Formats: sequence, structure tokens, C-alpha cells
Amino acid sequence: MEELVGLREGSSGSPVSLRELWGPCPRVRRGIRGGLEWLKQKVFRVGEDWYFLMTLGVLMALISYTMNFAIGRVVRAHKWLYREIGDSHLLRYLSWTVYPVALVSFSSGFSQSITPFSGGSGIPELKTILSGVVLEDYLDIKNFGAKVAGLTCTLAAGSTIFLGKVGPFVHLSVMIAAYLGRVHTKAIGESENKSKQNEMLVVAAAVGVATVFAAPFSGVLFSIEVMSSHFSVWDYWRGFFAATCGAFMFRLLSVFNSEQETITSLYKTSFRVDVPFDLPEIFFFVALGAICGIVSCAYLFCQRTFLGFVKTNRVISKLLATSKPLYSALAALVLASITYPPGVGRFLASRLSMKQHLDSLFDNHSWALMTQNSSPPWPKELDPQNLWFEWYHPQFTIFGTLAFFLVMKFWMLILATTIPIPAGYFMPIFIFGAGIGRLIGEALALAFPEGIVAGGVTNPIMPGGYALAGAAAFSGAVTHTISTALLAFELTGQIVHALPVLMAVLAANAIAQSCQPSFYDGTIIVKKLPYLPWIRSRKISSHRVIVEHFMNCAITTLAKDAPLEEVARVVTSTDLAKYFLVESTESQILVGTVGREDLVQALRAEPPSWTPGHPCLRDLLAGGCLIEPVTLQLSPETSLHQAHNLFQLLKLQSLPVTSLGRAVGSVSWVELKKAISSLTNPPAPK
Amino acid sequence: MEELVGLREGSSGSPVSLRELWGPCPRVRRGIRGGLEWLKQKVFRVGEDWYFLMTLGVLMALISYTMNFAIGRVVRAHKWLYREIGDSHLLRYLSWTVYPVALVSFSSGFSQSITPFSGGSGIPELKTILSGVVLEDYLDIKNFGAKVAGLTCTLAAGSTIFLGKVGPFVHLSVMIAAYLGRVHTKAIGESENKSKQNEMLVVAAAVGVATVFAAPFSGVLFSIEVMSSHFSVWDYWRGFFAATCGAFMFRLLSVFNSEQETITSLYKTSFRVDVPFDLPEIFFFVALGAICGIVSCAYLFCQRTFLGFVKTNRVISKLLATSKPLYSALAALVLASITYPPGVGRFLASRLSMKQHLDSLFDNHSWALMTQNSSPPWPKELDPQNLWFEWYHPQFTIFGTLAFFLVMKFWMLILATTIPIPAGYFMPIFIFGAGIGRLIGEALALAFPEGIVAGGVTNPIMPGGYALAGAAAFSGAVTHTISTALLAFELTGQIVHALPVLMAVLAANAIAQSCQPSFYDGTIIVKKLPYLPWIRSRKISSHRVIVEHFMNCAITTLAKDAPLEEVARVVTSTDLAKYFLVESTESQILVGTVGREDLVQALRAEPPSWTPGHPCLRDLLAGGCLIEPVTLQLSPETSLHQAHNLFQLLKLQSLPVTSLGRAVGSVSWVELKKAISSLTNPPAPK
Repeated sequence: MEELVGLREGSSGSPVSLRELWGPCPRVRRGIRGGLEWLKQKVFRVGEDWYFLMTLGVLMALISYTMNFAIGRVVRAHKWLYREIGDSHLLRYLSWTVYPVALVSFSSGFSQSITPFSGGSGIPELKTILSGVVLEDYLDIKNFGAKVAGLTCTLAAGSTIFLGKVGPFVHLSVMIAAYLGRVHTKAIGESENKSKQNEMLVVAAAVGVATVFAAPFSGVLFSIEVMSSHFSVWDYWRGFFAATCGAFMFRLLSVFNSEQETITSLYKTSFRVDVPFDLPEIFFFVALGAICGIVSCAYLFCQRTFLGFVKTNRVISKLLATSKPLYSALAALVLASITYPPGVGRFLASRLSMKQHLDSLFDNHSWALMTQNSSPPWPKELDPQNLWFEWYHPQFTIFGTLAFFLVMKFWMLILATTIPIPAGYFMPIFIFGAGIGRLIGEALALAFPEGIVAGGVTNPIMPGGYALAGAAAFSGAVTHTISTALLAFELTGQIVHALPVLMAVLAANAIAQSCQPSFYDGTIIVKKLPYLPWIRSRKISSHRVIVEHFMNCAITTLAKDAPLEEVARVVTSTDLAKYFLVESTESQILVGTVGREDLVQALRAEPPSWTPGHPCLRDLLAGGCLIEPVTLQLSPETSLHQAHNLFQLLKLQSLPVTSLGRAVGSVSWVELKKAISSLTNPPAPK
Repeated sequence: MEELVGLREGSSGSPVSLRELWGPCPRVRRGIRGGLEWLKQKVFRVGEDWYFLMTLGVLMALISYTMNFAIGRVVRAHKWLYREIGDSHLLRYLSWTVYPVALVSFSSGFSQSITPFSGGSGIPELKTILSGVVLEDYLDIKNFGAKVAGLTCTLAAGSTIFLGKVGPFVHLSVMIAAYLGRVHTKAIGESENKSKQNEMLVVAAAVGVATVFAAPFSGVLFSIEVMSSHFSVWDYWRGFFAATCGAFMFRLLSVFNSEQETITSLYKTSFRVDVPFDLPEIFFFVALGAICGIVSCAYLFCQRTFLGFVKTNRVISKLLATSKPLYSALAALVLASITYPPGVGRFLASRLSMKQHLDSLFDNHSWALMTQNSSPPWPKELDPQNLWFEWYHPQFTIFGTLAFFLVMKFWMLILATTIPIPAGYFMPIFIFGAGIGRLIGEALALAFPEGIVAGGVTNPIMPGGYALAGAAAFSGAVTHTISTALLAFELTGQIVHALPVLMAVLAANAIAQSCQPSFYDGTIIVKKLPYLPWIRSRKISSHRVIVEHFMNCAITTLAKDAPLEEVARVVTSTDLAKYFLVESTESQILVGTVGREDLVQALRAEPPSWTPGHPCLRDLLAGGCLIEPVTLQLSPETSLHQAHNLFQLLKLQSLPVTSLGRAVGSVSWVELKKAISSLTNPPAPK
């Protein structure tokens, strides 16, 4: 005992005793030290980026959780107020509507006053940024506060406004990643690099999705599908790492806060596992997918048209330009009045929160069969054990309320997307799809009350499975993604419907992709952001189109031997940002590019070192005007597909075309777009 | 009634009555006809490729199912023979060993006699092909029969040889895709296009994985991760479509054959759903992942070393060169003798088939707790209800058998991979990982017999969950993929362990990727196939390396004005396949490339139309020698990252480097490899 005490004292007191303790085996000591050194090196070599990714994931999870927590408190206060205010209809109506109106107008006013970029989801803009366009200040960290505060208010307005969280979270995550990246490069004193930054942004988008849904797989895949057209496996791995850190932290926090026992999925379902669906039902699942595809086309068309209408209509656009909070308040008032529970809201299950909407729609019982003989009462307060009572009405039955819900939410959602507040549009679409699926599932359960008999065993139909497939198919069709199927499984924690859901999503996507641009592409088009379309035609003939056929031949080149008057004339008569610099007027051999501003500055400076007589551009360049080298050039024989791939992969804006070293043209997004559209709509033969 | 009959007769009889019937509403008629026309156009526009993909999926599913069916019959016959042959040990031993030895030697002899490409999994070769290298005849359809017959025999040898199906199936699928593509282009009379072919091959690889495991999600992701470094979202969608068709058809066939009630997953588990694991267990899951990572490094190292040893050892390589079936038979005899059930096989659970291995390892009970007080008997015949009895031994307990299983299978698997037969190596690795997980899970269950208490509720530990995580982590580490986590969920039909499994896989991958090349890369290295390494260093400094630093400056150019003697001298003194053609010896401006064979032919022909006096290369070219245009060229200022990206994305072999139009160098895989390796191991300062 004394020895032990002595030892402990020795070890904590002076290092001499420790050294003595280990003294006898120097080889072991050296070995251990070497091993630790090696481990340290290994960890730090892989390190750097991994720490960054982990920080990003954990930070986003903290923000997401804190936001959920705050929103929960606000919503609870609203519920309490509504419950306690008494039976007067006027007071109840006021308490129901004033809350969201105030929150939404504050959200709109506050966020718009700080930054004009805070409205909407942000995904369309990010898509543009990731394709190589520079949108100034869009990723500035100063937008962060506005977006967070605005989004919290939007979400606190709850199911009345019916908006989600994904889009702004992706934007927030990308903002933080850009900020952390800048801090990192400043700290270690290295210059910034664009391709490294882009890598980070792609990963950050995945983290954004993953920390909202606690779904790392679909987070990564969804952000890939939405954001980019090409993806490197390296980014995908890093995305998984960061998304897993985020999702784990997000769920861990709710365990620590005693909200749940252990880490589970967000919208846990309890579908029958042994025979979840019968073989013939596959047909109905695919049909449901097709219906979702058609409805999504209608939705996308109406949404885009209405967004265009709002932009062009004189009254509304003036209102939006001068007083955004007023427009927001008016729209919120309309939405809140319709959802007032004792009024029309009775048929919209409007007392349910968005989470409860999903929970109830994914219920594994068939409401149609349960209400065939007995009708449950409409409880005065929401019954948390039987959320689905909200969907039942004695006269309308559940079919009436579900159909009414779909019809009303269709235009209410479109109206809500025009409000200039930070908000996501994925979750409402997901719930809408679940509604479509539930309606069809209930109809099937009623049509085949004994279930579909296959192989001698009867299995009742589970409308919840159809709700799951509908949610995945509709949200997949609207966003043109397939990973929503995986998201549905990760959210519910059950994968028993794997094949039918995937088939529904594929059917919905086939219809939506061939008829309408996706929700995000549609917004890009309406907002007139630059974008590069896909080559949809995969015909062999499209591979024969070469750069020569569509390049811009009318390029302005500056020759090194051009007299300064000529240079000044070119600079004043055109407004390009960059000019191609060629060796001489005669040879036209491409040397590099030179910036317009540099030229203008150099022209104004007029240093005295010029050759007497006829000063030419060469003297100007010798005077310190920077020539940027051309790192990549196309040939007239490069194919359209190759050029398109290059632009997409390397995030390019324009490339020079050279033939035998001579600059003969240039290709930019404009030319590519024209070439691609003439592939699908070939010009009429003359 | 009569009217109806009349109508029906009319409608089926003559078209006149139909026209009369619709006569009154020509607008509706026109509308319907227009609509149908539109639909037809839409379907056919999207069409073409989709039909192709569907055919591919369905074909592969049919092949996979038929193969499984045949294998099942052969295995059943073997079991019957072994059971009925009597109690004589010699006879039983012979019946146990002769079967696999005969099958494996036939598989080896038959497939190798038809084509030398049929051995192994084929994934390393496909990886090389997809990166742009042409391996002659590797995708020829004539290899198909050899591969199918060989693989059937290999798999029929069962758990004795312990090999899988994935790799060869990917190869088969790609073969069929290449064949269908050729038939298609021939049928419609279009010329073949390389980039379109590549698209098809990527999709086909996904179909191969999906039809083996009936897992479309992980099929697509696994093939992307294994095959390529960049992928386009377009390919990923097409992959999903084809993989879903394949997986659906594959499962549909087993429903039609009354093997199961409805479409379910292959290795269904029944883990506890409400609290599948406690929070503190996450730590053990990550630790399990780390252990799997370390074991995988050991496995990869030993496997590569042994493969190298087999190639270099005089005796074995001579045996393999002269008599492959003999080597195969010898190896099979060793493996079969060890797994003889009354002998050592008693401790290896060798009576279980590979499917039963997985089913038993994923069992949701804890064997350690169940055998603590009572010991189950070793049944004379396999008990299909209690497969896990096979893992129990009264003296050794389950820990002894599991540990023995792992130690023996470690080297048996390495031995099996050297047998030159068509075989997949993924499934055995997956089972091996499940064994590691089970061992650790059982140890934990014994260490914490009351479960881990969290939040006042006790939850017993499920070793099956660890087996799942171990399988995903070990197979992920060996193949350097993350999608094995998803595969584990799709195979078992449960996703409750989503986060812990993903974290285990990430931990295993972090260790394996930083220490060893993947299984497939290792095989590529040992087989000396060409490959382009990744840029693992993501340091900012790596972005500053430009083409000028590493390009090959010693290029051979042919000037148009070079005299023919000079051309002949160059052609005979060098053995390049292509020469850079420049405008003149003085200007060195790059015009294009010209093939060596063309040149040789033209030089031999010596047409009479040459200019008298000094005939030069220009005359030769005018005589019909083809100049290939340069579609893409690098500049000396292009960065290494950009060049690497270009090579990977566009599947290039080499590119010319030009400066001011002059050919100054070239970059090929060789230069890139050198530059990449000098990034990680910078040359010592002089």
C-alpha cells in the first residue's frame, strides 16, 4: 500500500521516477515511442480535412438541434395560448392567426433587411455556384444570422404556413463551410484555391441534408443528385464522413435531452414485416408512382407559372419591391385563416404539426376499414395516441378530408413558395406525396377489404406503405431525384418496401423528367440565374456534333504588335471582361488572356519606357500588365459531349478554340446552350 | 341487347361502323389521336436506351436465377450422397471431397481451355477497361459460356471452397451489355461510339451486383465506388433503372417458383426494433470497425504477398502454366479435407452452406447466454431450425469455434483466391466479417449479461447486430467501399442499425484506405494491369504542380516538310503507335497525330505522284495517309489536378502539350503516375 502511494506520488511528482520505472526495457520504450510517433504521423496526414469535416458536421447538428428546440418551445406556447384563451370564436381565431402572421412578417422583414439573399431555399443559387458561377456575397457569413433567425420564425409558424427546413439548412451549411475554409487558409497562410473550395461546398450540402433528417445515406445522395451532374467518389466518401458525424451528433443530442431512449430514426413506423405487401400490389405501387409523376408535372407547371405571374404582375411586384413584410403578412393571413381548425381547417387536419402529419399518414392501420362500422369522435384537443382521428369527418369520411387536403394544399403550397422568407420546400412536398399515397392506399384497402390473396394466405393492404411510396415518388418527381426512396427508408427505419417504393419513384421520375424541369431548375429559370442544361439526347448522332459547328467565331483578339490606338479603340468599343492575346496580327497565335481592367489601367498610366515612334501593345505588357496563361483549349474537332463534360467537370465559363495554335473562336455557356437546344429541336431544313 | 350485339359485330367486323360510331365528334377523335401520337413520341423518345437497360436487367436476373436453381440441385444431390453413403469414414470422406475436387478441376479446365480471361472475379480487369484501356477480347461474348459453366461448378462446390458470385456476375453483365450494344448499333446501322459504350458498361456493372443480391441501391453505389473515380448523375439514374428491373425480376422468379410468399430480402433478419442497441454500444461498434480495418489490412497484405509468391515460385508457377486443373484439384482437396465435418470441419461449422452461414451469424439471440447453462447436442444431421447448433462445441464453446473459424478461413480464403477458376471474392469476405462481428458481439453479451443499462431500461445486447456491422465493415475495408453498409441493410431488410453500421464501416475504411490498396487495386498491381492512381494528397501545395513540371519533353515530332528518308528513319528507330505531326520543322506547330502503321504502309506503297526531287512527308500525306485531329491539348500551365481530372473523366491515355501552338511535350499515364507519387513522397532535396 505504501509502495503504491509512493509510486503514485513519484509518477505525478517528478519524471525521474517514471523514467526509472521504465528504465530496464529501453527497447520496449523505443518501440512504443516509435509506434506513437507513427500513429501521430498517420493521423495528422489523413487529418487536416477530416477534422474540418467533423467540425462542420458537429456544428450543423448543434445548430439544427438548437433550432428545433427553440421552435418546439414557441409552438408549445402557441398551443397553450390557443387552448387557454377560452371558447370565444373571435379570440380563438385571433390567437390562431396573429401568431403565424407576426412570425412570418418578422421573418420576412428581418432577414430581407439584412440581406437580399436570404429568401427561399437557396438550393437553386447553390446549384449555380457549384457549376462555377460566382454569385458575390451569397456565401458570406454575415447572411448567417439573418437566415437562422428567419428560418426559426418560419418554422415556428408551424403547419399553418407548411414550410420546411432542408433548403436553408443546405445554404447555412455551405456558408459555414466557406467561412471555415477561409479561416483555415488564412490561419495556415496559404492562398485560396477554387477547386478545393468547391470540394468543401459539395460536402457541406450533404451535411445540411443529413443534419435535418438524421439520414446520412440519403443526405449525401440527395445533395449529389440535386447539386451536380458529375461527382467524384472522393467527395462522396468525405460527404459520408461529415454527414455521419452530423447525423450522429444530431440524434445524440436528443438522447441526451431524454427525448428518446437511444438513437433511432425520426419518423419511426411499425409496418408488418413478414409479408409487408403482396406481389400484385406492385402494380398499384407503380401506378401510384405514375400518378405522382403526373401530379408533380401539374404542380411544377403551376408553381413556375405563378412565380412568373408574381414577378410580372404590376401590383404584386410593386408590393414585393416596396413592402415585403406586408405581402408576407397578407399571404400568411390567408393561409392561417383557411387552416383555422373550427373552420375549413377541420377538413385539413390542421391541428397536426408537420411531424404529426407524417406520423399519422405512415400509420400502419387502415382508417377506411376501421371507420366502416364505427366513427370516432372529433376530440376537442388533439389526441396524441390517435392522431389519425384528425383525418376523419363523419360526413366526408377520410376520403373527403384527404382529397380536400390535397386540393387545398396544392395551391396553398404554391402561394407559400412566393413568400420572401427563408424556407425549405422539400418537406411540404414530401407530406403532400404521402397524402396522395394514403388516399390511394385507403381506396385500395376499401376495394379489397380482405386483402390481396396470394399463395393461399390473405394479407390486408397497408395504406401506410402507399403513403411512404407516395411521399418518396412525389418528392422525387418534383426534385428529379431517386434518393428520396432511400430517404423514406432512413426516416422511417424500415426498408421492407424497398423494391415497390423504388419502382414508384422511378415511374414518377420518368414522367416528371420528360415533361418538366425540376423544382430547382424551374426556380433557376424564373430567377434568370445562369445555368448549363444537360444533354438529354443520347442519340449517336449527337456525338457527331463538334465544336466547329457551334463555336463563336466572332472573337475579339488583341495582337501583341497592335498599336496602342487600336488597343484603346477595342477596349472602348467592346465590354468583354477578358481579351484573347495573340502573338501578332498576322499569325494570330494564342498567347493567353488579358483582363480589360488591367489594360485600361495600363493605358491610363502611360509609363515613359515606351519605344519611341509607334508604341504597341507589347510595350504595354512589358510595363506590368498581367497575362493569364491559357490552361486548356479546345480544337474545332472536339465533340459537343466532350466539351460539355469539360465545362461541367471543371466548372468552366468559357474556353478558347484554337486550330494550329491560332485562336479561331471561343465556346461559352451561351454557345453550348444553343447547341444543346438545337440537338433536341433540330433547325428546320431549308 | 340486340343493339349491343350489333355494335359489337360492327366494331369487330368493319371499320365503317366504328367510324360512324365516332362520327359525330371529330374533335374528340382528333384529340385522342393526337394524344396517342404524342404519347407514342414521348415513349419512343425516352425509349431506345430504356428498353435496352430493361432487357439487360431481365436477362441477368434470368441467368442469375437459373444458375442458383441449378446449383441448388447439385448441392442437394451432394448432400443426399453424403447422407446415404453409410457410416464408413472412408466412404464419407471420399463423398465429401471428391465432389468439390471434381467440380473445381472441371471448372478450371473447362473455362481455361476456352478462354484465358475466365479466371478470377474480373472486376480488376473491368476497372482497367472502364478507365480507358483496351483489353482485347476481354468483353467478347464467346467468354460467356466458359464463365457461366465455370462459375456454376465453382458455386456448386459450396461452402467447402467458400467462394462467391459477385465478381463474375459483373463481368457477365458487362459482356452481355457490350454484345447487346454491338447488335444494337449494327441493327440500326450506326457507327460505334466509345463514350456511349462506356456509359453502358458502367450501368451493366451495377446490374451485375444488383441481380446477385437483389439490392438495387447498393448495387449501383458499390459498382460506382469500385469501378470509377468520377461518375455522372445520368449514369447513376440509368443504373438505378436497370438494377431495379434486374432485382425485381430476380425476386419475382423465386415467388413464381413458390420459394417465398412475396418479394422480400435475401437474408431476412428479425432484430429487435424498439431499442435495437443502447447508446454506449456505439463505442463498441466503432471499435469493431477499427478491428475489422486492421484485420483487413493484414488480409490484404497476406493475400497480395501470397499471390505474388504463387506467381514467382518456380514449382507452383510451372504447375499453373502447364496444368491448371491439377493445381485447382490439389487446392480443392486441401480445402475439402479440412472442412470434412467429422474432422476439423466440426469446428468450422462446415455443414452450413454459405447462405446458412450468414443466416446463422445474423441470428438475433445470444448464443453465449443460451449455452451458459445448457449445452445443445451436435445433431447428426443439420437442423434447419437451429442452424447455430453447428457453431457450438461442448469443450471449445462458441468462442473457440468462432475464433478457429476465423483463423482457418483467413488462410483458406487466401489459398482459394489463387485457384484459377471463375469466382467472386466478395461473399466470403462478407461472411468472414460477420464472423468477426459475431465473436465480438458474443463476448460483449457475455461481459454484460444484463445488457447495457441506459435511461433505466435494460436491453440485452444483440450479437447479430455486431455480425451485421462486422460484415459491412470488413467487406467495406477490403474493397475500399462504404456502400457495403447499405448492402447489409438491403440484404437483411432491416435498417435499425443504420448509424452504428455506417460508423463501423467508416472507421474500417479510414484504417484500410490509409494502409493498403484495395483488394481490386492489389490484384491490378500484382497482375501488372495499367492503372492511374488517385491524388490522395489534398494539400494546397499539390494544386500548384503544373504540367510543365512533369510532362515528357522528349517527344518525337514529324514535320510536314521532313524528307522521306528522315520519316523512314524515325519510324524504324522508334516504336510509338502515333506520332505528333507538326506544320514544319521550324515552327513545330501541332497539326494532329498520324498512326505509325499508316505511315509504314504509305512508305511501302510509294505512289508515283510525288514531287520529283526531294519528296517530303507532305506528299505522303496527300497520298491518303490519315491525319487524326487533336481534340484536346494541355498547356504547360495546366495544373496536375486538372490534368488528372481530365484523364479520369474522359478516359484518356495521353494528351499533347502545346505552347503558342507549338508541340512542346506530352503527358500520359506514366508521367501522371510519377507526378502523383512524387507528391506523396517528395524527392529528397539535393
